[in-house]
Order: sequence, then structure tokens, then C-alpha cells
Amino acid sequence: MATLERDLAAATLRPAKRTASVTSSAVREILKLTQMPDMISLAGGLPAPESFPVDELREAFDHVLATMGSRALQYSLTEGEVGLRTWIAERETRAGVPTRPDEVLVVASSQQGLDLIAKALVEPESPTIVDSPTYLGALQAFSVFGPTYRLLPTDEGGAIPDALDEIGPGTSFVYLTPNFQNPTGRLLSAERRAAIAGAARRHDFWIVEDDPYGDLWYETPPPASIRQWAPERTIRLCSFSKVLAPGLRLGYITGPAEAMALLVRLKQAADLHTATLTQLAAQRVLEGGLLERHLPAVRARYAHAAGVMLDALATSMPAGVTWTRPVGGMFVWATLPAGMDAADVLARSIERRVAFVPGFAFYAAEPEINTMRLSFVTVPEARLREGVGILGEVIAAG
Amino acid sequence: MATLERDLAAATLRPAKRTASVTSSAVREILKLTQMPDMISLAGGLPAPESFPVDELREAFDHVLATMGSRALQYSLTEGEVGLRTWIAERETRAGVPTRPDEVLVVASSQQGLDLIAKALVEPESPTIVDSPTYLGALQAFSVFGPTYRLLPTDEGGAIPDALDEIGPGTSFVYLTPNFQNPTGRLLSAERRAAIAGAARRHDFWIVEDDPYGDLWYETPPPASIRQWAPERTIRLCSFSKVLAPGLRLGYITGPAEAMALLVRLKQAADLHTATLTQLAAQRVLEGGLLERHLPAVRARYAHAAGVMLDALATSMPAGVTWTRPVGGMFVWATLPAGMDAADVLARSIERRVAFVPGFAFYAAEPEINTMRLSFVTVPEARLREGVGILGEVIAAG
Repeated sequence: MATLERDLAAATLRPAKRTASVTSSAVREILKLTQMPDMISLAGGLPAPESFPVDELREAFDHVLATMGSRALQYSLTEGEVGLRTWIAERETRAGVPTRPDEVLVVASSQQGLDLIAKALVEPESPTIVDSPTYLGALQAFSVFGPTYRLLPTDEGGAIPDALDEIGPGTSFVYLTPNFQNPTGRLLSAERRAAIAGAARRHDFWIVEDDPYGDLWYETPPPASIRQWAPERTIRLCSFSKVLAPGLRLGYITGPAEAMALLVRLKQAADLHTATLTQLAAQRVLEGGLLERHLPAVRARYAHAAGVMLDALATSMPAGVTWTRPVGGMFVWATLPAGMDAADVLARSIERRVAFVPGFAFYAAEPEINTMRLSFVTVPEARLREGVGILGEVIAAG
Repeated sequence: MATLERDLAAATLRPAKRTASVTSSAVREILKLTQMPDMISLAGGLPAPESFPVDELREAFDHVLATMGSRALQYSLTEGEVGLRTWIAERETRAGVPTRPDEVLVVASSQQGLDLIAKALVEPESPTIVDSPTYLGALQAFSVFGPTYRLLPTDEGGAIPDALDEIGPGTSFVYLTPNFQNPTGRLLSAERRAAIAGAARRHDFWIVEDDPYGDLWYETPPPASIRQWAPERTIRLCSFSKVLAPGLRLGYITGPAEAMALLVRLKQAADLHTATLTQLAAQRVLEGGLLERHLPAVRARYAHAAGVMLDALATSMPAGVTWTRPVGGMFVWATLPAGMDAADVLARSIERRVAFVPGFAFYAAEPEINTMRLSFVTVPEARLREGVGILGEVIAAG
């Protein structure tokens, strides 16, 4: 045993340098705290489970296994099931960009899409543009491949295109979430979308358009996708996590054929293909018109929750706190008075059983530490008001 | 439109250097050929669909969606469902290495495990040992991260450990499939497993033990896993693709806590987690004892098919052709007379509607071009005999 113990101690793990970017995650630790009992969590990016179409999916999985079980359980094409890609291509075409099924790659969530895109396009220290703040999961996926981030400033209208003429040249791509962004909830105007596409053409860089929330508008659909402004250089990522269910792990990428061919080969090396059964079940509910029947109720639910959140903020927040007013999606972005650290606020609000995500996590470089992301779709109305009330007290005492 | 077309032509895709390894795949093209009608395909690495437990999985998916639908469709832990990891940990513990659930990471197939391990451990140009020939999917996953391959020679007994004292020092890990390897079908003896573990300890490198086929023995279970010989430095990959069904995309990694923590963070950046619903359904059939009931029939089916294949080879192959005699798994590895190119044989056999995978694809460096991988588990007995007969004629005419 003495020998064994010596040997055990001698196993030296030498992580590749690229893993330094993922060796800690403050947010991961925060999200664990939110699972404590009695916590009012405004921290999660989870969709409301009451919105999941459980019965329809149950019927679909059962039908697929009953009628084509062997096929649904066998290996499939790396690109994804032809039927599902056909449905997706028709939807993208109806939305404005003629799309063929072979320009679609089914992925295990848009997070996987980000990983594949980073593998395909990010060289170590290559300039890559992200809006600031930006989606944390994109930073996690990209950072594994060691880009040098260039930051696109934002205001109430989201990313400001002007800086692209300066930071665009020599960049591989700009990453953006134009619709109801995570973390800010902001919506990019048609004018800004066109301006971003124009800058990308002038300076020959690509656009990665991440659109998991576009269907979650409250009263008015968002403007045409960025892909419609620059189809030859936009890689567009969509997810079924928010419109069907995240536990399926299903999304897709669409873009120009040359880029898609590269992504397909990387997908093959990453996991061969996305689960056949899941794709066939999703295809069945989508072809059956589930989204058309289902989305109005999801939109109404989220619009109502956003209204409660905004009302509670107006009632409870002390002077000097400002926040975004989302017209879709799942998030409000609040800004505390300058100099106040949202991480300190979190430490104190956790003691009173209210959690949120401090904004620092969403910055590729120097964070604005007086920001916070507040999610409102999974907490019942009374608890939401209670939680925001406590948060207001904690901030006022700060 | 003139402007648009000019702009379309100007979108320059600049793939990252790492993608050069994945820009072509001869095997991918071959596998497309095998989908032609009337093809007798000995090319696929697919399990027999008749072996899939369709009814049991159908019941499990339905039960999970009926009784905990919202939970099954929601986001879940990156590590994987606790219940499934508990089942896996108990199985690994029973097999000989005490394993805790927190030493298990559920992945979307062992192919994803290979991608995560490469991300975690492969530096560009870092020495990495693979047996030769080795699993093509491992080469695809590793090559994205640019290792320098060192080759471990093989013989009828699989990888020969002796060379490890020479090529081991300075290596991050050795990659091996000890049980019924893809492509050769070979089984590594207990003595060789112990010798590989000893060399890894002497020279402080890690072992990546890929074991998707270990349960598919015909008459005698394989020796103890390499992990049992060096638990402190072995990362073990297992798959449910061959014992349940590949279309689920489900597998797991187990290993020392420090390595697992790193892999979990990379999994989070890669796709957040594996599908919740799939994990819960798999947990249900596994806890219900499906493998114990199901595996004997799969083993008997594959043992019979191997017997048919070996009998057909003995009947049909011209002098000078040799082949392995697998005692488990799905593959025979045949060697043609020196100087004969299996790719030429394939070109001629395809004309007669018989396909296989030429061996060159399974080499990290200089291939032995007179080798071929023959799969036998998806082709009905009469067709298998017919296909091998045609192959013998094509080779004899060569």
C-alpha cells in the first residue's frame, strides 16, 4: 500500500494552457447558492417549466419510438435529420433568407454551436469582437481557444456599430445577440443591424448572430435578423431551449455553405451527431404546428412576468438605481449607483435569501461592477415582488 | 443586385489552423457510398438495430415524461443527473475501482469525451501516444488540438507495452482501446494492461482508456480495466451506444477528481450538459436491470455473427490474406498480401456492391495500406457470406 500511495501522489495533471480560461467560474458557484432552500432566485437563466409542452413531447417521443424505434435509436447523419433540417430551412426561408436544408447543422444546443464556431474561427490571440457586456456562455466557449477580445460598446439600444470601422479590420468575427440579449434584455434596431452588416462587408469580417430569444417578444416581433442583411457572412445560431425545452439540448446553426461544411466536420469530431430520437421527436411536434399554438402563451406569460418585475423595481428600488425595460426575453439589467459593487450586494442579499448574478461575469475585459442581471420568468409573482423588495432594502442599506 | 453579388463573393472564410486536420475525410465519403441501394456494407461501425431495447426505452421515456416531465425538460447539472451517476459509480465500483458519483461525468457519447480530453490535455505539438492502428474517431478528436503523435506498435495481442519506456517520457497520455479494439477487434491481456500502467507510473503520464466494447464479449469477460491498474492516472471512457443504443448519444467519463473537475468545466463550455430527459430515461432502464437481461442476447447475436464472418473468410479468402479472430466486439481486421492496396480493392468491390473501410484511415502516421476493417454485426448471415465471397473474388483477381 505504501507503494500505491506514493504512486497515487505522483500523478501529475498538466492541463493544456487553453484550460486556464475555464479553471474557475464565480457564476457557477453563485448558481449553486441559488439552489439553497427558500432562496428567491433572480439568478437563473432558466425558462419557466410551466411553459414546457410536456404532453406534446410525450406523445412525440412515444410515437417515434412506436413507429420507427430502431431508426430513432441508430446512428444518424452528422448534419442532423433531413426532416428536421427541412423544417428549419423552411422557417428561415419564410423569415427572409432563402435557406436549403444543407445549409443547416443541428447541434446539441446553441452552446455547442458556440464551441464549434470558436474551434472553426478562433486562432490563439486572433482579434474577436464581442459586445460589452456580452453572453457569458459565449465568453466561456470562445476563451478556450484564446482570442484577443475587442469590445463593441453598448448603450440602451444595444451594440453601437460606429466603433466597427476602427476595431473591425483584421477581426475574424463579431459576436452579437440582437434580440433581448442575455444579460441586458436589449433589442438591436433595424438600423444598427444594417450598420453592423455594412461594416462587416467593408472590412470583410464575419458576424455570429446568436438568437435564442427572438421568439420571446411581448407585443411586437423584433426586426429582421442580421443574417438577412449579410447572408454571405453571417453564421446564425438558434436554440429550441426557450421555445420547446432546454432539457432536450437542441439547437441549430445556419449560414453559408462553405462555413457550414467546416462546422459539420468539427461537429463530427466533437460528438458525431445530435441524438436521433430527440431530433425525430422535435421534428414531429414542430411539423405539427406546436410553436404556432404554444408560443403565444409563452409570450403572454413572459410579458406578464416582465411587467411584474418592472413594477416591483419601480416600487422598491432606491434613487440612483436604473434598469432596462425589456420588450422580450427573460432579463432585466440593473445599474447601481457608481462605485457600488453588485458582488457586495449579492453577499448581503444571499443572507436574506435573494440571489441574482452580478454583472461583472458578462464582461470580456474590465467589468462594470455596479451592474446586475435580474431574471424574472421562473419566480411566482408574489415571491418576485418580495425578492425585489428585499433587494431594494439591501441596496438602500449599502 | 450587382452590389450584392460582389459583396457575396467577398466573404472570406479564414478557418483556424487547427481545422486543417478535419478538412477532408476519406472515410466519410466511403460511408456515403455504403448507403447506396443493394450495397452489402461491411464498412459500418453500427450496432445491430435488432439489438436495441426499443420497448423498454419507450416505456422509460414515457414514464419519465409522465411523472417528472417538467424536470426532465429543464436544464440540469453539467456533471450529469445524480441518479445516473450513482448507478454508473456503483457499476464501476463493482467492477473493481471504488468510484464516487462525483468522479463521473455524463457525456453525449464517448466521442464527446475524446473531444473534452483533447481540449484538457493536448497542447499543440505535445507528444501524445496512440496505438497503431487506432480508433479513427480519436484521431479526429485529438488532431483538432495539434498533438505530435508517438506510435505504440501492436501485434496480435494489441498494443505492445515495451516501447513505452522509450516514448513515454514527456508524453501527456497514451490512448488505448483495450477491449475488442476498433478497428482490429483485438483484446489486450492482463499482463499488458499491468505493464502499460507500470510504464505510465514510471514516466508519469496518463492513460486514456476507451472502452465502448467491453460488454460485448462472446464467451469470457475481458480482463480488469486498465483503470484498475492505475486508478490515479487513468481517464476511462465508456459508452451506452453499443449496450443500449447509439441514437441516444450517451456515455460517461470516470477518473481522478482533479481531472474530472477540469473536464466538467470544459463540458460546461462545450454544451452546458447532456440532455436531461435522455439521462433520466437511461437511468430508469439501467436501474431496472435492463443490461443484465439484455446483454446476453446481444453477446450471443454478435458471437454468432463473428462465427459466420470467420467461417466465410476461411471459405472465401485467397492464400496470403490473414485476419484477426475476435473474441468480442464488432470487427475483424484483415491483412492483404504485402503491396496490395486495400483502397484499390475497395474501388473494385464497390462496383460489385460490397463495401468495407480500408485500414489506412486508422493510422496516425504512415499507414499499412494492405489492411481492411470488416464489420459483421448489421448484415444478415446469407448476405454476409455473399459479401465476403465477392470480396475474396475481387482480392484474388487483384
